[in-house]
Amino acid sequence: MIDKSQYIYGIHAVLEALDAGQDIDKILLSKTLNAETAQKISDMARQLRVPVQRVPVQKIDRITRRNHQGVLAMMAAVTYYHVEDLVPQLFDKGENPFFVVLDGVTDVRNFGAVARTCDCASVSAIVIPDRESVSVNADAVKTSAGALNYLPVCRESNLAKAVKLMRDSGIKIVGTDDKTRTNYTKADFTGPVAIVLGSEDKGISPEIKKLCDTLVTIPEFGHINSLNVSVAGGIIIYEVVRQRLNDNQEVE
Amino acid sequence: MIDKSQYIYGIHAVLEALDAGQDIDKILLSKTLNAETAQKISDMARQLRVPVQRVPVQKIDRITRRNHQGVLAMMAAVTYYHVEDLVPQLFDKGENPFFVVLDGVTDVRNFGAVARTCDCASVSAIVIPDRESVSVNADAVKTSAGALNYLPVCRESNLAKAVKLMRDSGIKIVGTDDKTRTNYTKADFTGPVAIVLGSEDKGISPEIKKLCDTLVTIPEFGHINSLNVSVAGGIIIYEVVRQRLNDNQEVE
Repeated sequence: MIDKSQYIYGIHAVLEALDAGQDIDKILLSKTLNAETAQKISDMARQLRVPVQRVPVQKIDRITRRNHQGVLAMMAAVTYYHVEDLVPQLFDKGENPFFVVLDGVTDVRNFGAVARTCDCASVSAIVIPDRESVSVNADAVKTSAGALNYLPVCRESNLAKAVKLMRDSGIKIVGTDDKTRTNYTKADFTGPVAIVLGSEDKGISPEIKKLCDTLVTIPEFGHINSLNVSVAGGIIIYEVVRQRLNDNQEVE
Repeated sequence: MIDKSQYIYGIHAVLEALDAGQDIDKILLSKTLNAETAQKISDMARQLRVPVQRVPVQKIDRITRRNHQGVLAMMAAVTYYHVEDLVPQLFDKGENPFFVVLDGVTDVRNFGAVARTCDCASVSAIVIPDRESVSVNADAVKTSAGALNYLPVCRESNLAKAVKLMRDSGIKIVGTDDKTRTNYTKADFTGPVAIVLGSEDKGISPEIKKLCDTLVTIPEFGHINSLNVSVAGGIIIYEVVRQRLNDNQEVE
């Protein structure tokens, strides 16, 4: 059940929300919507980096039976940031950037648990793609125990481009990969770093893996050898904290 | 909805299950059951360390409408172990005991995630109390991704006594406590160790806390400062692995 405060419907209302710069998670456009209106909304959404999906009208009908005119905007519970804005800001402020990139994490409970860990470890921001990922809606904020009210979330339409931008800015990209033999404790996390976590079933996508400076693994000695993604994230995130504290850095 | 394979009902059937040494999680006895039968089942259950609960008959009715005669046994999906049996076995085999004690963890997803981590880290066993804890039923096994099919679970009617027995056997008891200043990375985990994790809201119970040789904390630098219990467990469990590998110990 979607809370009514979490969406806006109707052509005019959605255009106004876009115009007012409201935080929209995504816009659903019915396939039956006329081409001109669809184009107008899509153009405006693209400029504001809001994803648009064309869907059967029934999908919108299931969310609201009101007169939606084939247009519905799902509202975000937070303001999304962008890596290209945030990275220079962090360096300008003299901070030691620490990003956590979630490549394909779709379970809202895992996402919430990772957000809680990122808050505790004073991570600079979480980075997520705008597709095949959780939406940062009211449920996600609740599951994060409120951490998402404080922790910046960068949502990127092109995750590879965002990772490349971080790398080009001098941030070390460290990915997790079962197939590597490098123990995660052997990587140096004292400088600017972005940790990439993949989905539990598929791991990191090949495109993002190629962009990693280092691939590391968490050693496993059991029968199942399947760490929950939020637990794996916690282990590596706190290895960063451990190294930075040992290096007498302030973690903040 | 409880799967029918997960319970046995009726006076005779439950007595037979007890007699056959089947793995029973707990027995529910209706308050309307006659005193003699209740006594007989309770005595047998106590010998086998199976917890018994007196409940309103409606509670059993909600599980099955069959002719349960006021007696229902919830089956365990695993064989429970006991600390007093396992500890000497581990020392006899020349292993370096590594226990994880869950004091009041009631969420089955968190329990499953901790079990997965314990499997990966080759923890000797999980220790849980038989009250205010999850039951290791089919759901728990599923949530653990099957880890509970391999990882021994000690279920104790007196958790403090079990912890004391571990301590008296030379196992260092390390509890987590927000209020201490000792960073978890500063504790020595290379010898025999039991890590105690409390519930997210209440932490470790005072009785168990008094039995800890060391209290440690995971440093937090955020706004919410609330790690998920399975994530906190993962961070400390893998600190044990890190120290033991650095110490050139085999982790197995």
